[in-house]
Amino acid sequence: MDLIEKLIAAQRAKRSLAVLGVDPQLDSKTAPGVPSGYTLARFCCEIVEACAPYVAAIKPQLAFFEARGLAGMRAFAEVLALARRLGLITIADAKRGDIGTTSAAYAEAFLGDGDFACDAITVNPYLGSDALAPFVARVRSGRGLFVLVKTSNPSSGEFQDLAAPDRPLWEAVAARVRGWGGDFVGAAGLSPVGAVVGATWPEHAARARELMPHAVILVPGYGAQGASAANAVVAARPDGLGAIVNASRSLMYAFAKRPELKPGDSAAAAATAMRDELNAALTAAGKTPPG
Amino acid sequence: MDLIEKLIAAQRAKRSLAVLGVDPQLDSKTAPGVPSGYTLARFCCEIVEACAPYVAAIKPQLAFFEARGLAGMRAFAEVLALARRLGLITIADAKRGDIGTTSAAYAEAFLGDGDFACDAITVNPYLGSDALAPFVARVRSGRGLFVLVKTSNPSSGEFQDLAAPDRPLWEAVAARVRGWGGDFVGAAGLSPVGAVVGATWPEHAARARELMPHAVILVPGYGAQGASAANAVVAARPDGLGAIVNASRSLMYAFAKRPELKPGDSAAAAATAMRDELNAALTAAGKTPPG
Repeated sequence: MDLIEKLIAAQRAKRSLAVLGVDPQLDSKTAPGVPSGYTLARFCCEIVEACAPYVAAIKPQLAFFEARGLAGMRAFAEVLALARRLGLITIADAKRGDIGTTSAAYAEAFLGDGDFACDAITVNPYLGSDALAPFVARVRSGRGLFVLVKTSNPSSGEFQDLAAPDRPLWEAVAARVRGWGGDFVGAAGLSPVGAVVGATWPEHAARARELMPHAVILVPGYGAQGASAANAVVAARPDGLGAIVNASRSLMYAFAKRPELKPGDSAAAAATAMRDELNAALTAAGKTPPG
Repeated sequence: MDLIEKLIAAQRAKRSLAVLGVDPQLDSKTAPGVPSGYTLARFCCEIVEACAPYVAAIKPQLAFFEARGLAGMRAFAEVLALARRLGLITIADAKRGDIGTTSAAYAEAFLGDGDFACDAITVNPYLGSDALAPFVARVRSGRGLFVLVKTSNPSSGEFQDLAAPDRPLWEAVAARVRGWGGDFVGAAGLSPVGAVVGATWPEHAARARELMPHAVILVPGYGAQGASAANAVVAARPDGLGAIVNASRSLMYAFAKRPELKPGDSAAAAATAMRDELNAALTAAGKTPPG
């Protein structure tokens, strides 16, 4: 099965647009890091296993593993090994992108068969087509990518919204995403060359859907970043496919609000609620939840 | 010492603008990967140690370590440990950039004190100011960053040259680099908020220098990517500072053309030649080699 077939099967089997962002925060005033009594790997694996029935995919954020050095990378590999055992789709949130030969090495790292192999990766378009070609080439071995088009952060407009020259830069990127993915549109009308479009900018989601009719849109910004379920499902098609919605902190750190539960149990409860909220938002928008 | 002081001291002590790109290629038709009889770490460390007297810094490319999984990351940490023992400046060529909290984790990974700690990192500007702020904040602890402004690859113009709207996108990025680095300009008139401007686009280097008078410009594209020494030094100031020039494959794989030499010896010979060629190009341009 290619990425799209796997993703549709997972969305239907679990009736879910939800993606678990595996973002083990660093210790800080606002985030508890790894809960006491847990190792990094055990914390992440407990959350992943508990949320598996309710999420279409998991999206580990590389930064939080790299920040912990070699031990972090070992934990990352453990999380991926567990995800493979559970049959979970994995998206490396790595936002890579470099000149061709270097991007080929990143594609080998994250879309190959090694310790860090995932089903898909997020990539940065700033370097242009030849930087993304090695990732696109992995579509032929069943993998996929999500190109940053319009991100969810406060300064995302600084460059992405510049008029360049007849349309915002992000729309120019979206047009290229459609081109890169055009050869790989499958029976469901979707391509494994997807896009990241933040739910914090709902006015752009509908436009993104128009500009990239075949792209699966990975939607960050739901939950801790403040976007609503209604905003998050704007990019979904009428059949509830074509969009997946990530939440990280609101699932991983659900235990902070429910100290009577183990981290895994509180995350599972939060993932179930997220799934249901997204499905209700689909229904409210006149769309059909997958399943 | 902050990054700029260290960099100027290294450039003067070694009379060199050269940076060794530590890019252990994957095995392919065009690159021999790790030479037979060597481990990845031993190969990289032999090259780094041999080139140390002739280069101002080293720039390991993360992709080639990540592509080899956990073993690759261990080798990366070994290379950095050697560089610290040798007093070499290290630039993580990681091209990271993400929303604020995530960029903070990347800054901890590469500009903190852990296994992957370096003196500087390359970063991608597509997400805007809040994505780069956590890296800029590390300037206060003596570290630095190089923002991708105009890259060296064939499709770099696809987005970077778009008129956005009154000037190319890369010039808008350059203007922001000047702003981000403005608070940190030291006695030498240089800031640890630097920029990447590819030598394959010499017509842009002079303009980049104007737009970012205080940025240290990291110049890729020399050597295997085809840019000349004359092109590579366009961004250097009249005193030979303010620009450093990377070569990766032409140093790491110099042994392919000189099989009578060990990899380290052939790399050292190539690094010496590169240093001299860059200094000659400075002189030919009416500038003074550092030293």
